Amino acid sequence: MAEKITSREVDYSQWYNDLVLQSGLAEYSPVRGSMVIKPYGWAIWEEMKSILDKRFKETGHVNASFPLLIPKGFLEQEEGHAEGFAKECAVVTHYRLRTDPDKKGKLMVDPESRLEEELIIRPTSETIIWNCYKNWIRSYRDLPILINQWANVMRWEMRTRLFLRTSEFHWQEGHTAHATKEEAIAETEQMLHIYAEFMEQYMAIPVWRGIKTASERFAGAEETYCVEGLMQDGKALQMGTSHFLGQNFAKAFDVTFLNRENKEEYAWATSWGVSTRMMGALIMAHSDDNGLVIPPRLAPLHVVIIPIYRNDEQLDQIRAKVDPLMTELKQLGIICKFDDSDQNKPGWKYAEYELKGVPVRLAMGMRDLENGTVEVARRDTREKMVWEMTGLSDRIRQLLDEIQQQIFRNALAFREDNTHTVNTWDEFREIINSKGGFILAHWDGTAETEEQIKEATKATIRCIPLDAEEEDGVCVFSGKPSKRRVVFAKAY
Amino acid sequence: MAEKITSREVDYSQWYNDLVLQSGLAEYSPVRGSMVIKPYGWAIWEEMKSILDKRFKETGHVNASFPLLIPKGFLEQEEGHAEGFAKECAVVTHYRLRTDPDKKGKLMVDPESRLEEELIIRPTSETIIWNCYKNWIRSYRDLPILINQWANVMRWEMRTRLFLRTSEFHWQEGHTAHATKEEAIAETEQMLHIYAEFMEQYMAIPVWRGIKTASERFAGAEETYCVEGLMQDGKALQMGTSHFLGQNFAKAFDVTFLNRENKEEYAWATSWGVSTRMMGALIMAHSDDNGLVIPPRLAPLHVVIIPIYRNDEQLDQIRAKVDPLMTELKQLGIICKFDDSDQNKPGWKYAEYELKGVPVRLAMGMRDLENGTVEVARRDTREKMVWEMTGLSDRIRQLLDEIQQQIFRNALAFREDNTHTVNTWDEFREIINSKGGFILAHWDGTAETEEQIKEATKATIRCIPLDAEEEDGVCVFSGKPSKRRVVFAKAY
Repeated sequence: MAEKITSREVDYSQWYNDLVLQSGLAEYSPVRGSMVIKPYGWAIWEEMKSILDKRFKETGHVNASFPLLIPKGFLEQEEGHAEGFAKECAVVTHYRLRTDPDKKGKLMVDPESRLEEELIIRPTSETIIWNCYKNWIRSYRDLPILINQWANVMRWEMRTRLFLRTSEFHWQEGHTAHATKEEAIAETEQMLHIYAEFMEQYMAIPVWRGIKTASERFAGAEETYCVEGLMQDGKALQMGTSHFLGQNFAKAFDVTFLNRENKEEYAWATSWGVSTRMMGALIMAHSDDNGLVIPPRLAPLHVVIIPIYRNDEQLDQIRAKVDPLMTELKQLGIICKFDDSDQNKPGWKYAEYELKGVPVRLAMGMRDLENGTVEVARRDTREKMVWEMTGLSDRIRQLLDEIQQQIFRNALAFREDNTHTVNTWDEFREIINSKGGFILAHWDGTAETEEQIKEATKATIRCIPLDAEEEDGVCVFSGKPSKRRVVFAKAY
Repeated sequence: MAEKITSREVDYSQWYNDLVLQSGLAEYSPVRGSMVIKPYGWAIWEEMKSILDKRFKETGHVNASFPLLIPKGFLEQEEGHAEGFAKECAVVTHYRLRTDPDKKGKLMVDPESRLEEELIIRPTSETIIWNCYKNWIRSYRDLPILINQWANVMRWEMRTRLFLRTSEFHWQEGHTAHATKEEAIAETEQMLHIYAEFMEQYMAIPVWRGIKTASERFAGAEETYCVEGLMQDGKALQMGTSHFLGQNFAKAFDVTFLNRENKEEYAWATSWGVSTRMMGALIMAHSDDNGLVIPPRLAPLHVVIIPIYRNDEQLDQIRAKVDPLMTELKQLGIICKFDDSDQNKPGWKYAEYELKGVPVRLAMGMRDLENGTVEVARRDTREKMVWEMTGLSDRIRQLLDEIQQQIFRNALAFREDNTHTVNTWDEFREIINSKGGFILAHWDGTAETEEQIKEATKATIRCIPLDAEEEDGVCVFSGKPSKRRVVFAKAY
């Protein structure tokens, strides 16, 4: 049996950590900054991958694979990019170990295997990919190139948190090349909306769709679009980004093409990515003090069935009812498990599957057999119901849909309760320090004000919402004029 | 249009290289030893992954993810393993770059970011995984652990060949832990058979299933099982391995459990893997001087339809016939493409899709419209037929099955023609030097003889076949007694 999870009230951060470890999603590895994603966690990530991959392919993208290691010199090509990533690069300097002559049984780096040019483990792949595109692009007929890569990347971190911040993480990175600026911007926006729809429809997390301020832009981008979710502690989490890179990487790697007018032009670029960080968002947005709450559309297991019995004969009777039900559920695409193991009592199993966030639990005992019923428990509301066996599989399918929607509605209501339209600096500070959440406030558009607000409150501008209405106002901090409200929050 | 491919007769090795590059499967990257797997190549690998992953899951395995970087000290734990891999490790020694004070715009490794203990990029993950299993395994109730990982790994190579030998490659590595030796051996064998069935049924390559001699064993294994295919140049290619690791890694990482008798015991291990090397086998086994021949069950595109027309009106008439056909084909799970681009003439397209190994090509012109027919061309035999449009989709489905089988039959016939039962050393040398292929010969079971045969002919023992019959004989080299024939070949 897992140990007790710290409650959110007591220590939200510890609650998160306990939850990830005890539900078997992941654990720390002995390698600083790296994590082991355990089978249950990886199954959720695989489901996320599969849904997104399908959407990417439906919108014309193809997958490919580029090298893990990047020559140091590539990073130097695009100045902003280098500044953004150089400080967190794992560097490969040698390619061989040998036995240590001074220490029996020990290995040492072979000094003779020093590389002429050091290689870095990719923190992101713009440089190595645009170096390839240089050879792939000659004319507008070669465009667009719509490539995605599912990969592991590394950005060295000193303070790590499972899923949220680890040196090595898994992600997808789309890298597209276009003949026109308009097409590249349309691609950037399309991918942002695909992310947002995935997060709302599958992860059940409502998100802001917006644009980052200059200071929060991706290193090397002209514009960074983002999706921002709200966690239960009132902090925001950036769940994905989509970048319009302009011609920066085309210029850095000299990628030109002959356009329709037969003129040489630099190609236009986008890149966009979501990572295993989404796992952290999924966990933090919905789970409770009893464990994970996983939206059915991403759950590796939808329904667990637990028999209540005293002897083998009773278990056989229950199994005779459960087997056809399982067949029906599977036909409906519902993943179910009959946990008839005799190692643990029903109460232990209840707690275990609650911890793991299985959306629906069925329990069946002798009285149920007599009455033709089953006990149905929802993970999200922890409500228990007694339902007739007749027509059960269809009702469960409906229940799973209802749970998916309810989890989203809860998250949406939570976000609405924690989004504050604020007009004064006092109010801003008061809310950010007490309740947290999103603050909609006017901002004068300067990096100085943004920085001063951050220093004073730790709140950052999460985004300028895509659908922000024009509204005359004055900056909550400087009092200077502003045309629209932006979204502030403390963030992960 | 692609350049001409070198013919197999002229230079088999160059033919292979030309083919991989020109068909758009992959290319070299500027990083020594690394390759870019392009969308067409990656699509085939994704199909391989998807089929194998399904089989792994059907047999009770789950996926997980372990760190890319491994502390140097882990490698030291298992002596044989260290000897096998230390000499080809990419070593991370630092975690930060900084601007070079002496060279404007350049980056240098920050000497202050030196790691206390160097990290290596995983060449394989036994060490890091068994370090985890130590914490996961307490009692026989925790066993078996049946985990697989899809990952990139790195083994430094000086002489590289696309897909066949690259420093970074993609693979899956299964790592299982068991309570008994018997169970671990059964797992090792089960996975070998899953590999062999995949290779024969999907890749259309007949394989030997066998056991490696001690000198060819995986570093740290008690027994290495393998599957060996034959390429068109008469050389063998090891297509996958499955290792019974005994208790070696459990002892190295102190992984014990309480068995049913409540006694402390070391866990039993297996590991097994196949890699992007299979792509090389797929290409070399079937393709010809006109390009790739891809078995339909792995082809990213099954059918291409090419219109022959003089004007838009004709194209519209053809499209009106093609659209419903495409719908029918898609309903049968057949992936098809109508190439109505006006950039290239039909002849160019024919050559292009031949190069890419699309199993079936349909061509439709005005005469076909009048006659209610279509021209059907098989990629494998390059045979052309004129078929009625009526019932076409079903016939194409059957044709794809037939092509799959025919490719396998050809590969099998080729292997039979190139497998020689040999009883004298003269004959052995003559065949290995002229025709190549597999040689079935008696061997005295000693590493010395194995080594001497290798030095004299470059042929190695590919495996001791699993189904080898007992047969008294004398070693082809030493004349000493032998109980069974083993399989020799020159190999990739």
